[in-house]
Amino acid sequence: MEAVNIGSMLARFSEHWAPKNIAELNDYDVKIVKVLGEFTWHAHAHTDELFLVIDGALTIQTRAGDVVLGPGELFVVPRGTEHCPRADAETAVMLIEPRGVVNTGDAGGDMTAEAETLT
Amino acid sequence: MEAVNIGSMLARFSEHWAPKNIAELNDYDVKIVKVLGEFTWHAHAHTDELFLVIDGALTIQTRAGDVVLGPGELFVVPRGTEHCPRADAETAVMLIEPRGVVNTGDAGGDMTAEAETLT
Repeated sequence: MEAVNIGSMLARFSEHWAPKNIAELNDYDVKIVKVLGEFTWHAHAHTDELFLVIDGALTIQTRAGDVVLGPGELFVVPRGTEHCPRADAETAVMLIEPRGVVNTGDAGGDMTAEAETLT
Repeated sequence: MEAVNIGSMLARFSEHWAPKNIAELNDYDVKIVKVLGEFTWHAHAHTDELFLVIDGALTIQTRAGDVVLGPGELFVVPRGTEHCPRADAETAVMLIEPRGVVNTGDAGGDMTAEAETLT
């Protein structure tokens, strides 16, 4: 039983848009991801998705407008809501969502990535 | 659709051991709480519980030893695990657990508190 230090986990990888699992909460995964540039527009039909910015700035584009997050700010994208994250500088984000959710949701494509587990 | 700033939410209350809901993720609540001193030993038979320290230091005592968390560190208390949080100085924590979980779990007592929602 040990604490998980988010900063130490972030120091272990450098690639963008490749989420890593750092903890499990029942049937949810706690992930971290480094992002830079624009992701792909997509939605998750069956689940909400929590974004918490650790470092940097994240814009979550939605069809209803942008949500801009700095460090210590969170946003839950409601299920079924089309969104497209964007970061103009490298940004570190914690994500929480049910296990098995695909990062690109209904959109698929090149940015689809399965989360590796950091232990 | 707006970001939730954890620091701004923390600035809105001062009492200890009184969790506040700041977001919902499917049937989970995202809560913040200020703690000082020792809570009560308890367990949640049916769910894990995520603790993320925002500011300060939290010791999660378990029968298998202590887990000490600083800012940016998280720990998931496994379901059924007896634990007793303690903070020697005021500490701000984010909690995530299924909606309806009682803070004192199976123990009850004076520290039982229903989370108020901050909007």
